[in-house]
Amino acid sequence: MAVGISALLDFSGVSSSKYHLASTWELILGEAITIGKMTKIAMSSHQFAHIQDEENEDCNVLGGATAFALLSESHISVHTWPELKKVVVDVFTCGSSDNLTSLINFLIHRVVHTNLTVTQVQRGDTPE
Amino acid sequence: MAVGISALLDFSGVSSSKYHLASTWELILGEAITIGKMTKIAMSSHQFAHIQDEENEDCNVLGGATAFALLSESHISVHTWPELKKVVVDVFTCGSSDNLTSLINFLIHRVVHTNLTVTQVQRGDTPE
Repeated sequence: MAVGISALLDFSGVSSSKYHLASTWELILGEAITIGKMTKIAMSSHQFAHIQDEENEDCNVLGGATAFALLSESHISVHTWPELKKVVVDVFTCGSSDNLTSLINFLIHRVVHTNLTVTQVQRGDTPE
Repeated sequence: MAVGISALLDFSGVSSSKYHLASTWELILGEAITIGKMTKIAMSSHQFAHIQDEENEDCNVLGGATAFALLSESHISVHTWPELKKVVVDVFTCGSSDNLTSLINFLIHRVVHTNLTVTQVQRGDTPE
């Protein structure tokens, strides 16, 4: 028995700098939660500075944004790479698949991009 | 070009109630972040009450825990279902795969379980 679904959205060609701002993603996640009929427990976001992090030089997050919403129905996370024009969104929900579809469709229309890969993974159906 | 890896860990047979406590997961995530040589930006957790949520009756999170760590290298999330003895952990990192392997091995040994499925997904390699 699965406990939920992970929807992994990988956007490319996200050129507008606004989609690489934590403040934009706080707004978008708020809208997405309403569209998906979900309940927010907590939200957190961070704007990365435009400085090289020597300890994590293989991480292309410099100058990007990251945001996370903890939900009664699980979570939504966002990470952005402005220098690569890429945005990665994870939605994990134990709620209805109709609400998940509505939320994904909202994000697809809300984020201006050139290409998108959506991977869905059934979660928690590992037998004992 | 990928921007990172999502490792989706689905534990079953997690019988001990301690693994369904938010306070336990705050500790485990702290240890995991150290083992994975990652940097915490923020952490949030929530303990669900043992009451039926009529609006989300298809969500088996009642009485379970949820926790999230936002990292410089992306994020770790946890959701638990004590009534199903299931725990689902997502690790998304743009850091080194060695550190990800260390972190996953730590979680496998730290969480007493009977079975586990690990799914790894390369992220952000959608062409423009």
